[in-house]
Amino acid sequence: MKKYVGIDLGGTNVRAALINAEGEVLALNKSASNPEKGAEHVVKVIVDLVRSLPNQEEAEAIGIAVPGLIDVEQGTIKAANNLSKLVDYPLTEKLSGELDGRRVVLANDGKAAAIGEALAGAGKGNESVYYVTISTGIGGAAVIQGKVLMGRHGFAGEVGNMIVNERDSQYGIMNKGAVESGASGTAVTRKGKERIDASIQHAGEVFERAAQHHEEALKIVDEMTDDLSNLLSAISLVIDPDVIVLGGGVMKGADVFMPALREKWRSKLFEAMRDVELVPAKLDEPGIVGAAMYAMTWEEK
Amino acid sequence: MKKYVGIDLGGTNVRAALINAEGEVLALNKSASNPEKGAEHVVKVIVDLVRSLPNQEEAEAIGIAVPGLIDVEQGTIKAANNLSKLVDYPLTEKLSGELDGRRVVLANDGKAAAIGEALAGAGKGNESVYYVTISTGIGGAAVIQGKVLMGRHGFAGEVGNMIVNERDSQYGIMNKGAVESGASGTAVTRKGKERIDASIQHAGEVFERAAQHHEEALKIVDEMTDDLSNLLSAISLVIDPDVIVLGGGVMKGADVFMPALREKWRSKLFEAMRDVELVPAKLDEPGIVGAAMYAMTWEEK
Repeated sequence: MKKYVGIDLGGTNVRAALINAEGEVLALNKSASNPEKGAEHVVKVIVDLVRSLPNQEEAEAIGIAVPGLIDVEQGTIKAANNLSKLVDYPLTEKLSGELDGRRVVLANDGKAAAIGEALAGAGKGNESVYYVTISTGIGGAAVIQGKVLMGRHGFAGEVGNMIVNERDSQYGIMNKGAVESGASGTAVTRKGKERIDASIQHAGEVFERAAQHHEEALKIVDEMTDDLSNLLSAISLVIDPDVIVLGGGVMKGADVFMPALREKWRSKLFEAMRDVELVPAKLDEPGIVGAAMYAMTWEEK
Repeated sequence: MKKYVGIDLGGTNVRAALINAEGEVLALNKSASNPEKGAEHVVKVIVDLVRSLPNQEEAEAIGIAVPGLIDVEQGTIKAANNLSKLVDYPLTEKLSGELDGRRVVLANDGKAAAIGEALAGAGKGNESVYYVTISTGIGGAAVIQGKVLMGRHGFAGEVGNMIVNERDSQYGIMNKGAVESGASGTAVTRKGKERIDASIQHAGEVFERAAQHHEEALKIVDEMTDDLSNLLSAISLVIDPDVIVLGGGVMKGADVFMPALREKWRSKLFEAMRDVELVPAKLDEPGIVGAAMYAMTWEEK
């Protein structure tokens, strides 16, 4: 079976794994990334890490996931809070040069997680998968026939800005009533803080209270599932995916909101569509696996 | 250049054209379809019509568009108000047998129009096109790299059911606040009848009044562009298409609503996405051209 290397490059650590075409992790190593030391240092760290993986020379191509905006065609980082010294640096070209000329591709970590879940995780075996991640923000990605749909501006999947209610105020650069402002972890935390207890620090505290039938917490969760079901219904009607996969930190509270979310979402579809599944993400390493799968499915334009 | 036959089969007429790979109509004939005389009669009418097209023998494949629900894999009609005697009849198989064994494919007329506009009309030259038709109902289709995205249930593009407001009542099988109930031709007509003049028969009468600054007519058009801009914004965020094409009978009133619709839609996107275009459909024969293009791009599963 063909093999690939997947890399997750963050501001603190970089992790690299050898992964087979089924998305199984065969070996994984990590080290400190120290991006403040500059792009060449990071390249050296990555190259040493890849070389340290047993049988890495069998990998056909290498994918890197980073938390930032990517120029897909150039293979460069356009913006990344924790990797500012790598912006506009020819990262994929340099790495390819150091790694026997193998193909190196760069992806946003959210897109990488989506392709990981679609091809090797909860969406495996489906022709079209829509991945939605709910954490501090809400984002997503469509994976159709094994390829991430980038869209004209690379914004396909930026569904956090979708207008889903007339209830909430306008926040930041988001639309008034955007699902990210009503149903993200940040939004649930903010509502908990405002409406339940000023000491609330994260969404889990609201979910805990909801599990104990706290009235206002239940109301906040109810608003969240109203908003998310509108989002998921819109996704289903626009592309009718085989399956929708939900990931992100907020899924820790899935027990509290998934049953209601599934029911509301299905009620907002045409009857003939209601057999479609909404499933939680399941990979331990979606970014790394997705980066490898991205390298596997990437095609020269 | 390769050639194809496109056919538009309706309850009254059937039209057939020879079309080249650029989507240009080289020859077009029509006759009465008389579907009440049965499926075999309709096959004979279609075969005679195709044979009457000059140089039709050069066509590689044949596409048929019908106003109804299709079983794509079987090549049969599952439901069609005006073609009930053709339901479950092996239409593509029979036609292929009568037309020298050439490939015959069947499409819903809305999907056919979408692929026609995407490949040969207002979307030509773009990698991804979302087509939205606004007439009695609201529907659509995504065409990505030349292929119509069908979706799990064939419902990709059935965006008329998308929830876009909290204002309107619930109608028929649609969601409360569905865009079809707030912004279709039927909806604009209903609102005109209820809020302006009980004698109003079609949306054009509301648009005419709006053009003359009639206050309530302007309000109805304002609601329509609010709702449609939410729909189009959702489409852009879900798949970020290169272009959105608007078709359907309501486009006769485009002068009255398109400027405001464009502005509201763009304001509901991320700033970096606002260069994307919203363009009116432009083919005279989208169904016929689309049927031919569908035959051209169709692939055996």
